[in-house]
Amino acid sequence: MEYVLPLQRLIEKFCTLRGVGYKTAVRYAFSVLDMDEQDAVEFAEAILSAKRDIHPCKICGNLSDSDSCSICSDNSRDRSVICVVEDSRAVTAIEKVKEYKGLYHVLNGVISPVNNIGPEQLRIKELLDRIGTGEVRELIIATNPNIEGETTAMYISKLVTPLNIKVTRLAYGVPVGADLEYADEMTLMRALDGRRQI
Amino acid sequence: MEYVLPLQRLIEKFCTLRGVGYKTAVRYAFSVLDMDEQDAVEFAEAILSAKRDIHPCKICGNLSDSDSCSICSDNSRDRSVICVVEDSRAVTAIEKVKEYKGLYHVLNGVISPVNNIGPEQLRIKELLDRIGTGEVRELIIATNPNIEGETTAMYISKLVTPLNIKVTRLAYGVPVGADLEYADEMTLMRALDGRRQI
Repeated sequence: MEYVLPLQRLIEKFCTLRGVGYKTAVRYAFSVLDMDEQDAVEFAEAILSAKRDIHPCKICGNLSDSDSCSICSDNSRDRSVICVVEDSRAVTAIEKVKEYKGLYHVLNGVISPVNNIGPEQLRIKELLDRIGTGEVRELIIATNPNIEGETTAMYISKLVTPLNIKVTRLAYGVPVGADLEYADEMTLMRALDGRRQI
Repeated sequence: MEYVLPLQRLIEKFCTLRGVGYKTAVRYAFSVLDMDEQDAVEFAEAILSAKRDIHPCKICGNLSDSDSCSICSDNSRDRSVICVVEDSRAVTAIEKVKEYKGLYHVLNGVISPVNNIGPEQLRIKELLDRIGTGEVRELIIATNPNIEGETTAMYISKLVTPLNIKVTRLAYGVPVGADLEYADEMTLMRALDGRRQI
């Protein structure tokens, strides 16, 4: 053991965070030692509170500190459109654009045979229940643009299309500000495919 | 506010760690959400314990979870040599070498007029008290090899030399494995200065 026990334990805890190696964990642990007593107590309390007070929204599955999240309980939002995303990080990303006014549905993952995740582990049943209320007109599938996201999008689309609901997918194309020279072939092909008249 | 309040609070707490920006803090906060309840409780407890149970050793100032640190209370160590360092991280660095068998003295910083730190803010009085016991023969000054570390080394050396104590400084030179082409002039000059017969 390199450090005194309580410090070593803290270092090991920091190591469990995504992307934190040992040297970084040591730096963080020393940061904690340099904090005021009060700040450290607040830090510990923030960790406990995040685990204790954050629950998935009963309707959409987004992170929430009450029964239904701030988006689902906002009456000004368009209840006829649901944007289907993999996780609540995607909700935050789309909310930042301040353009979309519909609701969300968080799947909690994507279909991934490699990781042993099938449709029944995702919140797809809950999505069908929401569609069942008859309020929904359009489903925007915004899973990530990779094979698993695509598979999930196709799966949901096949389930939902017979219910007479419009299913759309985020547009593929070259990202704004990018250089065509460095765009991969698949992206360029999709951008050509999806070309629009100006 | 981008995230639900308890999450936002946790993100801000992570931002107070040294070298953590907002995006990294978000990643860490989501890592905490992904933890088991038990792991999160242990993490919070590790933070509180580090602040509560770690105190400076009464003798050398190194981090300790009891009155005197494991090095000071180790009777097999040579009590006639004290290695003077800036902080307890330096103690760990030197201990890793497993070569040095003397004691340490942690100054808690270096003399730095720019940051308004004078000798009276460092644990120099405590060092003189330890020397006063008559047990100490040699002081190895291992402050960092920069202007402030050098100034502090000179200051201590001037105080201690009249007490008939040998004062030494870590050797300067080219680091093992380095390329001479890229060594800075000051380091090369010091390496020439300190050359030894082979």
